[in-house]
Amino acid sequence: MQFADRLNNVETSAIRELFKLLGKPGIISFAGGFPDPAMFDIEGIKEASSKALNEEPGGALQYGATEGYGPLREQLSSFMAGKGVTVQPEGLIVTTGSQQALDLLGKTLINPGDKVIVEGPTFLATIQCFRLYGAQVISAPIDAHGVKTDELEWLIAEHKPKFVYLIPTFGNPSGALLTLERRRQVLEMAVRHQTLVVEDDPYGDLYFGEAPPPSLLSLSDSVPGSRELLAHCGSLSKVLSPGLRIGWMIAPPALLANAVMCKQFSDAHTSTFAQATASQYLKAGRMPATLAHVRKVYGQRAAAMGNALKRELGAAVAFEQPQGGLFFWASLTGEGGKTRDAGEFAKKAIEQLVAFVPGAPFYAANPDLATFRLSFATADVGKIEEGIARLGRAV
Amino acid sequence: MQFADRLNNVETSAIRELFKLLGKPGIISFAGGFPDPAMFDIEGIKEASSKALNEEPGGALQYGATEGYGPLREQLSSFMAGKGVTVQPEGLIVTTGSQQALDLLGKTLINPGDKVIVEGPTFLATIQCFRLYGAQVISAPIDAHGVKTDELEWLIAEHKPKFVYLIPTFGNPSGALLTLERRRQVLEMAVRHQTLVVEDDPYGDLYFGEAPPPSLLSLSDSVPGSRELLAHCGSLSKVLSPGLRIGWMIAPPALLANAVMCKQFSDAHTSTFAQATASQYLKAGRMPATLAHVRKVYGQRAAAMGNALKRELGAAVAFEQPQGGLFFWASLTGEGGKTRDAGEFAKKAIEQLVAFVPGAPFYAANPDLATFRLSFATADVGKIEEGIARLGRAV
Repeated sequence: MQFADRLNNVETSAIRELFKLLGKPGIISFAGGFPDPAMFDIEGIKEASSKALNEEPGGALQYGATEGYGPLREQLSSFMAGKGVTVQPEGLIVTTGSQQALDLLGKTLINPGDKVIVEGPTFLATIQCFRLYGAQVISAPIDAHGVKTDELEWLIAEHKPKFVYLIPTFGNPSGALLTLERRRQVLEMAVRHQTLVVEDDPYGDLYFGEAPPPSLLSLSDSVPGSRELLAHCGSLSKVLSPGLRIGWMIAPPALLANAVMCKQFSDAHTSTFAQATASQYLKAGRMPATLAHVRKVYGQRAAAMGNALKRELGAAVAFEQPQGGLFFWASLTGEGGKTRDAGEFAKKAIEQLVAFVPGAPFYAANPDLATFRLSFATADVGKIEEGIARLGRAV
Repeated sequence: MQFADRLNNVETSAIRELFKLLGKPGIISFAGGFPDPAMFDIEGIKEASSKALNEEPGGALQYGATEGYGPLREQLSSFMAGKGVTVQPEGLIVTTGSQQALDLLGKTLINPGDKVIVEGPTFLATIQCFRLYGAQVISAPIDAHGVKTDELEWLIAEHKPKFVYLIPTFGNPSGALLTLERRRQVLEMAVRHQTLVVEDDPYGDLYFGEAPPPSLLSLSDSVPGSRELLAHCGSLSKVLSPGLRIGWMIAPPALLANAVMCKQFSDAHTSTFAQATASQYLKAGRMPATLAHVRKVYGQRAAAMGNALKRELGAAVAFEQPQGGLFFWASLTGEGGKTRDAGEFAKKAIEQLVAFVPGAPFYAANPDLATFRLSFATADVGKIEEGIARLGRAV
């Protein structure tokens, strides 16, 4: 069987090999990018699902509009309003998780050979998703405050990319938070260079202290012309449940219309059963309490991990304390002649029954081999302290 | 904004324009390809969903394997066994409706310019889906017994297609049932020409009298070498609920592995919430009763529509009485100087408050403009008789 050439553009083995080792008994894993299932509001989802089947069985079980289930689009419009974004229900489409929004952006926009700029490092499924459409993926460097906007602008001017993809708020894997000033700069350079910017925002609601700066989308109202150059991807996966596979995309009308056309042939529509359930959940008003709970628990875990890292690994690793999201992004300093190779370190860690993901696969190019990602979401404080102690022994 | 060139390959306006008219009050619609929501086993789905959330909340709400939720793959393996197909749970993957299986076949296999052979007419979203990947779609003619295998073989020999896509059992829109002899011939020519065959089978369970011949997949055991050249797409959409978006694909291991890799970047996985619900539904053993009920009701409606067509339109239309599925495929004969243009006829029908879909968009090439499709699934017998009487006035 002769497969399509586009399959040659992707490489999925790096992380897959590591994940095979996660089945080892007794392992403490900081590897996944998953929320903690103990945070799932099962009662609330159960009620929402019953309500959906009782009150709107046709809507919940029949074919639906490709754009999304009407009542859910209304709820998501209100949800976004609570985050300072004005968007009509018709201005957003529902996607099968935000992964599908990325796929639809690729399908709608990317010709083989087109350039796309992403953060280096960024979400690795984004890199592979765009490469499947033949994109040449270019990395813009980041620091603790997100993408370096001066370097980003040079890259835009040089490469004239089809679009720029950013996770401005608690990035994956970086955990970084783009400053307000840089957010404005990104919008201004979008207008200056007439470049589309994609804001992926699955983590924006997971802040531990004060709220992060407004999203690019929210801020676009104050930068004339920028809203027409902005696509925004949201998701219920990290805050409610990934299993529902409910994401959404807000974008200029022409892009949205083409994405809907593509989605029609991708999966016809997102599960109306899941959409009606999510819609009832949001309507029931349970989201604020769920978010408050999740923020508190993840905040405690992030604090515990930061303290343990300092205590157990000291000068051997450098990192910024994340203010939200799911991840620590750390780097081996090589202090005292220790290894600076995070791949090596991951193998030694597995021997100590603790797992994490080395940073290299998160880079579209020029990986920093000393970096690695730790998720604090799924292990409780006790497990985190034990796991980081094991890391201390492994280093 | 500059969109990808692949968007120029598709055209979606033909049917969309017609569907806009369906909102007219008092209209009787034979246009959709939807099952009747009155057939949905809401109680059974409600029980299944509660069970999923009570017994396996983590599995139902967390991220899941791209290949599909383990317990559902087991249930689908048993479900297929009941239809004479031996497949291990690892030999099938779950897809977000069978539309996604088509998309994954396109993504995995089609290079721009590759040829794909489909029936003329066939499911129109298939044509568009493959064209989005740059396929040149070639039509193989059909008659009342499905694709004409002699002509299909000439086309395969001439065009050396990437694959052949067929709906052998109660085709959409044709309603045709491929004979057992032709099924064998298709498998033999797959082996002879080493050509992949895709069997799309959403309607095979919807038979009214005796069961149809075995699926190509079931039959492949008796044609050496054919199973390795066969991909089979199944779906719960027409028999249980489209809103769950649960389909599956059975294919040779290398194809399945690449489809999983592509799916990872399409939507990560199908809603585990929907998968766990479907799994519990199948496990509860309610499917046989549901199928028996659906077959009986649709059988009555098909009989009523056939009788009404003969009574009200007489020699003005030609059609075969379908033995299963959702559709009548009919053709204007032009008898008595009446129109042979189904597009014109559709407009006159709308004036009489009855809707159907003209046949032209179902052809990848050389449309037969006299053809049209009538669905008997969603209107009850009374509505069917009234609707066909209106058609009689419109012709």
